[in-house]
Amino acid sequence: MLLAMDGFGFSTEITVRFAETDAQGIAHNASYLVWYEVARIEYLARFRGGYKTIQDEGYEALTIESHVRYLRPVFFDDRVTVNARVVDLRGARFRFEYLLARGDETVADGWTQHAFVDRETLRPTRSPEWLTAAIAAVEKDG
Amino acid sequence: MLLAMDGFGFSTEITVRFAETDAQGIAHNASYLVWYEVARIEYLARFRGGYKTIQDEGYEALTIESHVRYLRPVFFDDRVTVNARVVDLRGARFRFEYLLARGDETVADGWTQHAFVDRETLRPTRSPEWLTAAIAAVEKDG
Amino acid sequence: MLLAMDGFGFSTEITVRFAETDAQGIAHNASYLVWYEVARIEYLARFRGGYKTIQDEGYEALTIESHVRYLRPVFFDDRVTVNARVVDLRGARFRFEYLLARGDETVADGWTQHAFVDRETLRPTRSPEWLTAAIAAVEKDG
Amino acid sequence: MLLAMDGFGFSTEITVRFAETDAQGIAHNASYLVWYEVARIEYLARFRGGYKTIQDEGYEALTIESHVRYLRPVFFDDRVTVNARVVDLRGARFRFEYLLARGDETVADGWTQHAFVDRETLRPTRSPEWLTAAIAAVEKDG
Repeated sequence: MLLAMDGFGFSTEITVRFAETDAQGIAHNASYLVWYEVARIEYLARFRGGYKTIQDEGYEALTIESHVRYLRPVFFDDRVTVNARVVDLRGARFRFEYLLARGDETVADGWTQHAFVDRETLRPTRSPEWLTAAIAAVEKDG
Repeated sequence: MLLAMDGFGFSTEITVRFAETDAQGIAHNASYLVWYEVARIEYLARFRGGYKTIQDEGYEALTIESHVRYLRPVFFDDRVTVNARVVDLRGARFRFEYLLARGDETVADGWTQHAFVDRETLRPTRSPEWLTAAIAAVEKDG
Repeated sequence: MLLAMDGFGFSTEITVRFAETDAQGIAHNASYLVWYEVARIEYLARFRGGYKTIQDEGYEALTIESHVRYLRPVFFDDRVTVNARVVDLRGARFRFEYLLARGDETVADGWTQHAFVDRETLRPTRSPEWLTAAIAAVEKDG
Repeated sequence: MLLAMDGFGFSTEITVRFAETDAQGIAHNASYLVWYEVARIEYLARFRGGYKTIQDEGYEALTIESHVRYLRPVFFDDRVTVNARVVDLRGARFRFEYLLARGDETVADGWTQHAFVDRETLRPTRSPEWLTAAIAAVEKDG
């Protein structure tokens, strides 16, 4: 595991793919939402089989809001550390915060807001108890 | 409807999106498979509600093979005509052929091979009769 | 031209591509940033050749911040009207606001913040005068 | 390094991203071309700084043809080993072959054809000598 930034207990690393760049020669702005997602999946993978288990138990987590600040351009083949943490998990909703760094330089930050829904009906539902507990345990010092 | 190239009874037009370019300053090679798909969906939309109807009747069409020849680079904001036709629809399988043109210049061509499957089991199944008939009618001079 | 929503003088329409959906059966959250971009390009296309002219004159417009609220899921083949307007164009920066609708139902909204940079140096630079004037003219009632 | 399949001296591993799936619940057919590319970049990274060095020396490698056989559906979070090798590197052209496996099950295969071009003019040019030599050395038993 990489050493996460201050205030973040989790991080993962992505390498910017050529397909993720655009004709400005930098990573396209939509790519960051995909990297956020990669970090969320790996964040959750630490708990009981992760997102697949969440789905198997009849839930989906919808993304209901997203925000990115692109602080410095990121280039093909750059290695970017995606720090992620959950804040405000209660009821059906939770929020992830992100900080993206290249070496010790912050290149982007932002957050996403999510809602648990019933997989069949897509109606809001409380998050699985075990997940709330597991996240509370790892984020208690957040 | 655009005038399709010789041998093609159908065409649609896409405009190259900025997100579809890469740091070489040209459209990324994977974008062409997305444009193929856009053309397939619009091709099928002429028949009984198109792909959504096919799904509603319990089918999916999987892509089982793809091929692209990239003959000339394509750039941001280029308008590209995607000519498409079905060849060899029989049993569970069918093939689309494509010719992509910018003005009167051919920029790419290729084909995809598909298989009808049962939507639940993902097992191969014969194509819907009405679709076979409809495609045979429009492609009879192919 | 489509009739834009109240407060928006411009809109364009996209059809959700199959490639833009994900295994939740709905459009992926990153797709919205691509649709924003399609709308920006078409918005600017009304002025002097649009973004290509801006590039030819030595500028790029970087995306420095993005925000999306996903209000209702959007599905394959849905037609979505993307309303867009520029607010706060001054100096090197400008902001686009968006409202996405399916029929008369709002499905998403948000904004992006941009900075004009010199194409060679990627350093901030004032926006082209002609563009500031042209946008001011169309957005004066905004 | 992973153990590559018989006949392949190189492999890398990708995990299927949620963004790479579509509403059929499987990885989208265009994603495979992105995975091919990830494998090419890592394949080349073993030689003198890889693709970035190739670019720095004034070359680009264009993709001029692609082919994929989708043998079995691939799902969200599946780990896929992408085996890659270069065959037929001579003059300005070279070909990559790929075999994608999930565990010991082959899920896809195919190839891409490439041409070296001068980065400024985009005109065909012989591949860098050092790269031809380096690839010949690793692929000699191919």
